[in-house]
Amino acid sequence: MQTQKLLVNGERLKKELRIFANFGRTQNNGVTRLALSEEDRLARDYFCSSCTELGMSVKVDDMGSIYATLPGIEDKPPIVIGSHLDTVKKGGRFDGVLGVLAGLEVVRTLVENQVKPRIPITILNVTNEEGARFEPSMMASGVLSGKFEKGAMLNKVDGEGVTFEEALHSIGYAGEVENRLEEATAFLELHIEQGPILESEGIAIGVVEAVMGMVCYEIEITGESDHAGTTPMPMRKDALFAMNDYIQAIRHKLNQLDSDLVYTVGRVSVTPNVHTVIPNKVVFSLEARHKNAEVINEVETFIAEQAQEIKAEGQCNVKLTKMWFRDTVWFDEELVQLLEESANSLAYSYKKMISGAGHDAQFINMICPSVMLFVPSKNGKSHCEEEETTWEECEQGANMLLETVVAFLKEK
Amino acid sequence: MQTQKLLVNGERLKKELRIFANFGRTQNNGVTRLALSEEDRLARDYFCSSCTELGMSVKVDDMGSIYATLPGIEDKPPIVIGSHLDTVKKGGRFDGVLGVLAGLEVVRTLVENQVKPRIPITILNVTNEEGARFEPSMMASGVLSGKFEKGAMLNKVDGEGVTFEEALHSIGYAGEVENRLEEATAFLELHIEQGPILESEGIAIGVVEAVMGMVCYEIEITGESDHAGTTPMPMRKDALFAMNDYIQAIRHKLNQLDSDLVYTVGRVSVTPNVHTVIPNKVVFSLEARHKNAEVINEVETFIAEQAQEIKAEGQCNVKLTKMWFRDTVWFDEELVQLLEESANSLAYSYKKMISGAGHDAQFINMICPSVMLFVPSKNGKSHCEEEETTWEECEQGANMLLETVVAFLKEK
Repeated sequence: MQTQKLLVNGERLKKELRIFANFGRTQNNGVTRLALSEEDRLARDYFCSSCTELGMSVKVDDMGSIYATLPGIEDKPPIVIGSHLDTVKKGGRFDGVLGVLAGLEVVRTLVENQVKPRIPITILNVTNEEGARFEPSMMASGVLSGKFEKGAMLNKVDGEGVTFEEALHSIGYAGEVENRLEEATAFLELHIEQGPILESEGIAIGVVEAVMGMVCYEIEITGESDHAGTTPMPMRKDALFAMNDYIQAIRHKLNQLDSDLVYTVGRVSVTPNVHTVIPNKVVFSLEARHKNAEVINEVETFIAEQAQEIKAEGQCNVKLTKMWFRDTVWFDEELVQLLEESANSLAYSYKKMISGAGHDAQFINMICPSVMLFVPSKNGKSHCEEEETTWEECEQGANMLLETVVAFLKEK
Repeated sequence: MQTQKLLVNGERLKKELRIFANFGRTQNNGVTRLALSEEDRLARDYFCSSCTELGMSVKVDDMGSIYATLPGIEDKPPIVIGSHLDTVKKGGRFDGVLGVLAGLEVVRTLVENQVKPRIPITILNVTNEEGARFEPSMMASGVLSGKFEKGAMLNKVDGEGVTFEEALHSIGYAGEVENRLEEATAFLELHIEQGPILESEGIAIGVVEAVMGMVCYEIEITGESDHAGTTPMPMRKDALFAMNDYIQAIRHKLNQLDSDLVYTVGRVSVTPNVHTVIPNKVVFSLEARHKNAEVINEVETFIAEQAQEIKAEGQCNVKLTKMWFRDTVWFDEELVQLLEESANSLAYSYKKMISGAGHDAQFINMICPSVMLFVPSKNGKSHCEEEETTWEECEQGANMLLETVVAFLKEK
């Protein structure tokens, strides 16, 4: 039987996104809604009551993540749609919240069309994806997947000495360990791209195959402080010029690797940082991301080799500390294919891509088959008040979720 | 009549240097004696009473500088010997104080040998050479020479909101404007080199011909902050990599200029300075010093040209601010020659050199014929607790002053 295609209500989604933008609105139309803050509580309460009104049952797990479930005809593991409601400080109106509210819009569309789903549908709000108040990021999904140890996470403190556990209780979202996600038919996370690719290529949907592997080093170069006026150039042990040589050599080498490789020196500290004194110490970060482990391996080899070269010159010492590392997480191939079919069915332009940013889905992928989809970010901006995605693009993302859920419900 | 050569008492000089090292001694054998501090007052009081005991008259000018004068047979402008008693925070036991105490030792030697000088001899302690508590450095000599405006200097505040004027009164060294140095036969400043040249070449005395000219720019490069994981390399406007290119190009160009040129990037600040974010702003200092104005001009041309090149690449903007500039100050040629003759007479090894660091003598040179001489700094270190000059080297420096004063006294 050929039925009319089910589509979400874009106006309703827009209205909800605008309401949530008020939970922590900043002066410049951005949002500050740190995890477990009063603003987060307001957003959570509103979300829970919206779900309850739709006839969903709401549960909270021991890390404060919320599961709102629309029952299915068959008692099967649910299709889970979700993302996170927290933001960074002076963040935007779309990062995270879009994936949760698009899930809500999918359920609303099904309920108003009296579609009783074959299998349950759960909307998930994962606690503290950003890690902006309590480090690390992706905290609750990390605990869910066994990547992080719960006790250690509960004891994390914010800048004012409040522990995660205290904050969880203070907003009334300390739930039960039994409520954790343990089994699901699929996890679908819609998110803004946070990069410029979709916009620059004029494409509506990114079908995300993987989250890129990354490595981050802290590099400390030590030389000697001397008077900037009285020390001849050949007698200097200038840590800053050594850093300059190091970065330049690394750029030269990395630029010869695959063009998808991205790498960044984001943080630099110079000692003593006085204009009349030759620096005796610089500490800087160097991070690199690529989907292939071999490329990351090559980056690490270059980092080590270049440190040896600086040492061999005899003026400065170099100390390397590996701060972070993650392997590339490949999403479920069948789900990737299903998203492609949904885009084709909706006649949306799409491209398969690799996420350079980390997301909860990379951890939830360890529990159940998972996949992500992206909608464009204007100028590639995120984690700032200028973060922007058009209402139409948001609606298309939600339609992708709905189309994919409907496909699941039809399956035998 | 051939008399026996007059020489200072090295043991007495060593004893005085050790006594003054106690006025602000640090745990690691350094000295913290900030200008107009309680430690500075103790050192000044001790210095004044030592001078009075020798039959010298002591006057203080309106910037707190002290003039202790041994009268001469003829009423002529004095020979002035001096330097400064203040230090930086955690400075050393020789910078400044050596030039004052060597002057005291010269007078003591004359007095105990019953030499009544033909013309007066004044020992000068110049207030606030270091600028460590109240900026700028060389404050009082700058006021003396008309380089700095007195009213503005009196209003300078330290880190705790105390003005220079208040501090001057609180230690009891606010004197009279009439006492300022207005005329002198010569000014002689003995100082530690603060660089590694004399030590590395095994030379006892540096005869200083000039204080090097310098220029210091603050360079601000602005790009755009984006996510380190999601922004392809060709779409980045990375201010830090632009800084790296800038510094590398400048080094390449400056290394082709005269090998006496010294240049330093001492200060760098990166925004937002987060390892996962591409920097949108870096601000750094670039200073260069050389005796020839044409070389400094070339440096400035390169700084401007390279800024244009970065702009022309179209990713980042560059703003240049000229922070400091000084022309090379050439000391009196006859005094330079007199110092050479003294070194030859004493059979001390010496070399003519240019000071890369600034000193009070560069301002006092505007009032009267001036010259400086250096003694070695171990490992070129100064402005730190490790600052070291041997007692023998200090004694040789004092003998140079004495020999030169004696030569003056003989003159007709």
